[in-house]
Amino acid sequence: MKNIAIIGASGYTGAELIRLIATHPGMRIAALAANSKAGQKMSAVFPFLRHLDLPELVTWEQIDFSAIDLCFCALPHKTSQEVISQLPKTLKIVDLSADFRLRDAAAYKTWYGNDHAALEMQEEAVYGLTEFYRDQIASARLVAGTGCNAATGQFTLRPLISAGVIGLDDIILDMKCAVSGAGRSLKENLLHAELSEGYNAYSVGGTHRHLGEFDQEFSLLAGREVRIQFTPHLLPVNRGILSTGYVSGDARTIHATLEKAYADEPFVQVLPFGQTPSTHDVRGSNFVHIGVTGDRIEGRAIVVTVLDNLCKGSSGQAVQNANLMLGLPETEGLMLAPLFP
Amino acid sequence: MKNIAIIGASGYTGAELIRLIATHPGMRIAALAANSKAGQKMSAVFPFLRHLDLPELVTWEQIDFSAIDLCFCALPHKTSQEVISQLPKTLKIVDLSADFRLRDAAAYKTWYGNDHAALEMQEEAVYGLTEFYRDQIASARLVAGTGCNAATGQFTLRPLISAGVIGLDDIILDMKCAVSGAGRSLKENLLHAELSEGYNAYSVGGTHRHLGEFDQEFSLLAGREVRIQFTPHLLPVNRGILSTGYVSGDARTIHATLEKAYADEPFVQVLPFGQTPSTHDVRGSNFVHIGVTGDRIEGRAIVVTVLDNLCKGSSGQAVQNANLMLGLPETEGLMLAPLFP
Amino acid sequence: MKNIAIIGASGYTGAELIRLIATHPGMRIAALAANSKAGQKMSAVFPFLRHLDLPELVTWEQIDFSAIDLCFCALPHKTSQEVISQLPKTLKIVDLSADFRLRDAAAYKTWYGNDHAALEMQEEAVYGLTEFYRDQIASARLVAGTGCNAATGQFTLRPLISAGVIGLDDIILDMKCAVSGAGRSLKENLLHAELSEGYNAYSVGGTHRHLGEFDQEFSLLAGREVRIQFTPHLLPVNRGILSTGYVSGDARTIHATLEKAYADEPFVQVLPFGQTPSTHDVRGSNFVHIGVTGDRIEGRAIVVTVLDNLCKGSSGQAVQNANLMLGLPETEGLMLAPLFP
Amino acid sequence: MKNIAIIGASGYTGAELIRLIATHPGMRIAALAANSKAGQKMSAVFPFLRHLDLPELVTWEQIDFSAIDLCFCALPHKTSQEVISQLPKTLKIVDLSADFRLRDAAAYKTWYGNDHAALEMQEEAVYGLTEFYRDQIASARLVAGTGCNAATGQFTLRPLISAGVIGLDDIILDMKCAVSGAGRSLKENLLHAELSEGYNAYSVGGTHRHLGEFDQEFSLLAGREVRIQFTPHLLPVNRGILSTGYVSGDARTIHATLEKAYADEPFVQVLPFGQTPSTHDVRGSNFVHIGVTGDRIEGRAIVVTVLDNLCKGSSGQAVQNANLMLGLPETEGLMLAPLFP
Repeated sequence: MKNIAIIGASGYTGAELIRLIATHPGMRIAALAANSKAGQKMSAVFPFLRHLDLPELVTWEQIDFSAIDLCFCALPHKTSQEVISQLPKTLKIVDLSADFRLRDAAAYKTWYGNDHAALEMQEEAVYGLTEFYRDQIASARLVAGTGCNAATGQFTLRPLISAGVIGLDDIILDMKCAVSGAGRSLKENLLHAELSEGYNAYSVGGTHRHLGEFDQEFSLLAGREVRIQFTPHLLPVNRGILSTGYVSGDARTIHATLEKAYADEPFVQVLPFGQTPSTHDVRGSNFVHIGVTGDRIEGRAIVVTVLDNLCKGSSGQAVQNANLMLGLPETEGLMLAPLFP
Repeated sequence: MKNIAIIGASGYTGAELIRLIATHPGMRIAALAANSKAGQKMSAVFPFLRHLDLPELVTWEQIDFSAIDLCFCALPHKTSQEVISQLPKTLKIVDLSADFRLRDAAAYKTWYGNDHAALEMQEEAVYGLTEFYRDQIASARLVAGTGCNAATGQFTLRPLISAGVIGLDDIILDMKCAVSGAGRSLKENLLHAELSEGYNAYSVGGTHRHLGEFDQEFSLLAGREVRIQFTPHLLPVNRGILSTGYVSGDARTIHATLEKAYADEPFVQVLPFGQTPSTHDVRGSNFVHIGVTGDRIEGRAIVVTVLDNLCKGSSGQAVQNANLMLGLPETEGLMLAPLFP
Repeated sequence: MKNIAIIGASGYTGAELIRLIATHPGMRIAALAANSKAGQKMSAVFPFLRHLDLPELVTWEQIDFSAIDLCFCALPHKTSQEVISQLPKTLKIVDLSADFRLRDAAAYKTWYGNDHAALEMQEEAVYGLTEFYRDQIASARLVAGTGCNAATGQFTLRPLISAGVIGLDDIILDMKCAVSGAGRSLKENLLHAELSEGYNAYSVGGTHRHLGEFDQEFSLLAGREVRIQFTPHLLPVNRGILSTGYVSGDARTIHATLEKAYADEPFVQVLPFGQTPSTHDVRGSNFVHIGVTGDRIEGRAIVVTVLDNLCKGSSGQAVQNANLMLGLPETEGLMLAPLFP
Repeated sequence: MKNIAIIGASGYTGAELIRLIATHPGMRIAALAANSKAGQKMSAVFPFLRHLDLPELVTWEQIDFSAIDLCFCALPHKTSQEVISQLPKTLKIVDLSADFRLRDAAAYKTWYGNDHAALEMQEEAVYGLTEFYRDQIASARLVAGTGCNAATGQFTLRPLISAGVIGLDDIILDMKCAVSGAGRSLKENLLHAELSEGYNAYSVGGTHRHLGEFDQEFSLLAGREVRIQFTPHLLPVNRGILSTGYVSGDARTIHATLEKAYADEPFVQVLPFGQTPSTHDVRGSNFVHIGVTGDRIEGRAIVVTVLDNLCKGSSGQAVQNANLMLGLPETEGLMLAPLFP
């Protein structure tokens, strides 16, 4: 039984980690930190966890890390690098923030606006998209969880770019994102009265920070610079990302390429050709569903990918990575069925 | 590992049973029946179950029950009694329909309008509210799952009636119910466009069938006839029942009575006095949360109870009962944390 | 054409006033104030008003009231009395806050916690439930809009108390309220991710401030002290209040009493006996629907009342009152049909 | 005052017509037909219309068309052409179905699968996108309302194709559609429990029938064959379409072109460059909001367009056309502000 600490336990990704670990046979929660709510019980911060016997919230400085096997950091970006740089250098860490995703310091500054406070650790960090960095993650000390949109788009495109079966200069990802991706933050546009019964695009025109991840990863894969178009939309649902990918290439080849790439992946399901997935079918789970359809226009295909942003897009991915880092079976604790309806 | 059959697998309670059994360490699904969809795959009927290796849907007549340890019947009422009367007489059965809840044949006819087709089995059936019929359920062959509203109201009132701490002639349960309670049926008022962004009462004035259960159980407990007022409301959410109970009695005594009654119950949480529960905090789980508050009017109290209608109110309760009937630990497979947000 | 000013134009009730006045043939918006957003355009604060040619937001101190025929104050309570006490003493005002609803200064302090800053104006104010204070409102200078819950409950109960057809000591109003009633305020429990797909009671036990209005009005009508039980619930919809009233009395007499009381009211519809209303059917409108059903328990009845909290419960009522104060037809600008679906 | 008949009054577009005409100063409803519900009152079919004094539902054969100035047909496609072919040949008709949108009989058969039953009337029909066919509509006898998706996409693209400022071979419209567009039909995927809290694409790959309209209109404008990619998505909201258009061209030029094209249009608002619209801001109204943003990739632009599918996308457009056909001001009865929140 591995002892787990969570720093940043009062946000949605922190709570989702607890939800998953609650029924994980190989992990137990040994410490929970949330500096702004230290001293409170988790049942006050998240009453849905009331049935669990959880440690009281403390500040992260109060945690005795010598007894911890692995620590999840679910802090906002920038705060995360500051805290992680002060943690023991031997502690295994899965960071859910954006702080260690970009290998290039200049790219980090471009997308996040500040100089990085822990450059040497940035080099050490492994990019946490489990299905594609499995071996490095298993031997890593610090793993950087991906952006939830970035994960979704990469499940669509990585095998296609690697196999060279799509054009690289006209890729579009039109993405629809659930509101929990914005966290438990008090912003007017996240209020129920402002959000429910409507929707809108945001960060239009190539300004969303997850593009930094797309640029880094796709260019690396292609061996040349790749720049895609990516438009996120805010939808009145709590969980679920759906990415509609428009690519050039042969649809059947694209489908076969994805089927082959994910044939042995326990969490990734490629649907029969011509079927399209729904976010309803992955809610609350670590699964990814992918559907491929050909367009009436010759040489064009549509690839639709769905996942749960809080689970597979964030905390589920984090547990999957932690399993590898701790020598546990990769799927342990993560085979929970989606919740429907 | 116990072999499980589910008859009526194409409805919401059937799907919820599969969701729960998917991660249940002591059960495996051996047969799935849905006569109207026999020959189909579950992944076509419920794509959210796509990751599971499930048997194809058959008719219930096609199931070899000699290999089955326990059978869940998730059929509509009336159909259920007809099917169950034809099943092997030694087969352990948990019925989720209304067919075996009422012990009195006349009461059954009053509320359901037809003569009962399996009267002798009705006598054999044990009422499936686990926390109050635990011993009988453990030794039963046929258990009748309760109505979801009926379960909610009984968690509020049973200990209070037993302890004699509330008046019996002015009990009101104002209940708010999620739409999945109505099943996967094609009715105009269940359409998204008709239901979302609004709500209404229904079966007003004491006409809802779950009153048959309230009448039977509360009168039995009190040793006299008890008739409560009960008004259900249809709400634009998919899961969750909230019952606001208005009773006369001392609020502190009421709270203490409930705390004591549920002190050792793994699934029932009584909140600190004065706190009120939310359906958000039990969604997708087998938990019940109960809150008690005193009114400004002396001698009046409000008891609010929440649970997930599909899980604790139906399929979760059914699995809990099946655990007992099969000699498994009562909580096995049921400690899943709620899904929030 | 009457010149209208709105103070507090950046909240939901302010925006709703503008929505209604936009197609009102007898009113034009001459000034809009919102001190925290002075200098901004309304299309930036509420893009749904983009098509209107509206004055820029100013501070209320900048308004030239000599050119204003009537001023709506849509400020938070407490702020409202401070501002109104500084406005010209001859200005016609409809206040939408809670500040002038309670005639008794002690009652005000009990429910709102502070001493009243404009006691002399409190005496002058007329309670703004149009259907019951029509004549006083027509000749008033200052009208105090009612609470939205308070309005809903009074539509249910006033005629019944006046006619003496219900018991006064066992009245319960179980109320279900839309989130817009809480305003455009940044609170965690109003976030989409916290609110959608679930619900809860709040202010349980007789602590909601609108009870001050119920106590005042019902006691006045009955000629004795009347104290009801009232439990509000927060629902995941944006507009609409549904009050389920439990009363003792003869259901048919109750229905006949309500039918007679509202026979000539343009905005209040009493449904045929036994039918129940839905908030869907009044959304965005100034209408009230009321349904009466008898309970299976002799001598008990259920009265369900619905209205749109932002319109009839607040800004629509305010315009209705303003029509009377300005000598315009009472229904002018208010016959907009509800929006469904 | 013009006498109006509505055939197909029991569906959502029929009800929306009544909602709009209820406050239209130049129209009165003289007859309502819905053959499957003949003999019923509208208040039974749509209780939100309860406050209106409406004629009882009849069959369309029972209507005396000699007293009717204009008839709206809100029937399903195919049924519509059969009924319209039997109506008086001098009757002014606005058809809301798909039956008279496609000028080419072969194209009609390709997209709708059947031979057209009223070919001669198809030739007579004018395509009802008011802003672009104003003059023909004013003098037409039969106007064919556009598809709601087709309207949305044309507001984005028509001025750009006409002006030649975008490439014609790489246009993509990713569209997000509210559920009311599917009508009041009993389909499993339209149930609240199936739809809320999730979303999916449908008719992927160029199979949606509204492509017939796009092909016809864009090819006509461009003077060559134009084939776009169009993917609709079903969203858990009741009203509102958002189209995200991906085009090649200079973003500033595109914005200027749209601004100029719509400068005098009362219902079309082009937002300042770089702003993006929301469906929240047009709900319940006849307005269209359009936003243009440049992409980080040189020569690519994103044009986002929103409208209310039931109003501007269907019944509002129909009333706008009827105004022209009856010699009334085009905006009469249609300047209702959107409903927010």
